[in-house]
Amino acid sequence: MNESEVINRLKRIATDPAARGLADDAAVLDGLVITHDTIAEGVHFLPTDPPASVGWKLVAVNLSDLAAKGAAPRAALLSLCIGDEDWDEAFLGGIEAACESYGLNLIGGDTIALPEGAPRVLGLTAIGKAGERVPSRSGGRAGDILWVVGTLGDGAAGLNLLQEDAEATGPLIDQYRRPVPLLAAGQVLARKANATMDISDGLLIDLQRLAEASGCAAEVDLDALPLSRAFIAERGQDRRARLFAATGGDDYALLAALPEGFDPLGLPLPSDSTIAAVGRLTEGSGITLRDAAGPVGLPERMGYEHRRD
Amino acid sequence: MNESEVINRLKRIATDPAARGLADDAAVLDGLVITHDTIAEGVHFLPTDPPASVGWKLVAVNLSDLAAKGAAPRAALLSLCIGDEDWDEAFLGGIEAACESYGLNLIGGDTIALPEGAPRVLGLTAIGKAGERVPSRSGGRAGDILWVVGTLGDGAAGLNLLQEDAEATGPLIDQYRRPVPLLAAGQVLARKANATMDISDGLLIDLQRLAEASGCAAEVDLDALPLSRAFIAERGQDRRARLFAATGGDDYALLAALPEGFDPLGLPLPSDSTIAAVGRLTEGSGITLRDAAGPVGLPERMGYEHRRD
Repeated sequence: MNESEVINRLKRIATDPAARGLADDAAVLDGLVITHDTIAEGVHFLPTDPPASVGWKLVAVNLSDLAAKGAAPRAALLSLCIGDEDWDEAFLGGIEAACESYGLNLIGGDTIALPEGAPRVLGLTAIGKAGERVPSRSGGRAGDILWVVGTLGDGAAGLNLLQEDAEATGPLIDQYRRPVPLLAAGQVLARKANATMDISDGLLIDLQRLAEASGCAAEVDLDALPLSRAFIAERGQDRRARLFAATGGDDYALLAALPEGFDPLGLPLPSDSTIAAVGRLTEGSGITLRDAAGPVGLPERMGYEHRRD
Repeated sequence: MNESEVINRLKRIATDPAARGLADDAAVLDGLVITHDTIAEGVHFLPTDPPASVGWKLVAVNLSDLAAKGAAPRAALLSLCIGDEDWDEAFLGGIEAACESYGLNLIGGDTIALPEGAPRVLGLTAIGKAGERVPSRSGGRAGDILWVVGTLGDGAAGLNLLQEDAEATGPLIDQYRRPVPLLAAGQVLARKANATMDISDGLLIDLQRLAEASGCAAEVDLDALPLSRAFIAERGQDRRARLFAATGGDDYALLAALPEGFDPLGLPLPSDSTIAAVGRLTEGSGITLRDAAGPVGLPERMGYEHRRD
């Protein structure tokens, strides 16, 4: 089974309404929003990544799911594998820093040893307090405008730099290693959005999921993608760079479908928020891309997917 | 850091009351009892174990933590690594069977691929509805009688048989592969017990944790340990066999400290429950063992511990 087939199998088991059909960033149970992300060495982080940043990122990627649902951080359970003393100590320092930064209380988990030489596997269950509304991925409607909060491509560009030089530093690498969950923005968007999700595997693959869950098609204007100065300095902003940013993954930006005519610039978003209208939902199915020069074909790779075979 | 040092480090982070100082089987948050267990191939299960039984066991060990706190199964999040198609399908069949058997609803989780050749690592967060009381490990008092529900040593004896012959079958192997969480018994005990926990790493090491959390010493009568007929047939019931049963791990029996004079045989336990008084809490600290012949020295190995160095 590839990832899609496994998820279809899981969906047949997960019939409780709290599961939201496993088609959302998180489950919603008794006023709590609950998510779990697992990361593996060599897949989600590099053996050379500073362990404190791995701890930070594990917390941040889970909080990004809570952010996408407008939830406030409440508690977490950590699945920890122990091995190298210094690595573990620094990793826990990163966990602690992120928990403190975002008011997340560690309340439990499990500590295990893996067989000698096995890649590290680390998991976190994050629990948030639901706001008045918890938008799903499936509430988008034809005509909705697609907004992105945050910038795209930085994390993937940072990873690329590290693959060329494990000692590289700079803002793109910071974004790859220490993403910032957009909790305040998510809480504001949740009050008004028809559909929301976080962009973790890449805009196109994640938008495909939102559009499919909403029973819509989606159009994306590549020229409208929000790119950071650091990204543009590294990779430019031509069509190739924009396709990279649209499919790179590791963004932890937020995607929201808001009713046409609604201006999110009037919302009380944090003052440093980057927000851009990148397209719209339409009748039908599938994703179409364009830029100033006209239609753009879909890339073969829409984003990060585990085991596509 | 060994496991104890890591847990001490985690305790310094986990100051929220819901964490119960990380000294309990589960966290208690907003009327929910929440636990997470992770299992790894080559550590918690054998590569040769039938994958359906691995799925069953992952659910069962988490439910055993809920049972120990008297909670009713409510929902679960699964951390799944995917790889071999047939293995994954059978594993999910085991997950589904256990979830259905105990009314646990799968509501979320994560699906990842591990690097080629990495041992499988699988996690589950289980959420239960708290009963009127959620006894901790720390409420035991000097004078309390220590009761065990279930039998001891079967799982470890089953594992030993499988290590000698991977094709072995029988009730001890069933107990190792498909433990039964004692949910109904746990709910009954929770109403009256001063302290409870599940016995997953071995009676002695787990009792040491309960006694320490309760600020007590504990005496155990090895002759009183509840042993199954299958265990006795395989390993006998002499002192050596009883020490094996007291330290084996993988029991998923329940340990409860009940006030002296309280007779749990009057409780509405399930009719097939095995319950035995195995000792008592006393003033002081540490564990002492005895049998009909007199005091028995503590074994070097008190139970299963990750990374003791």
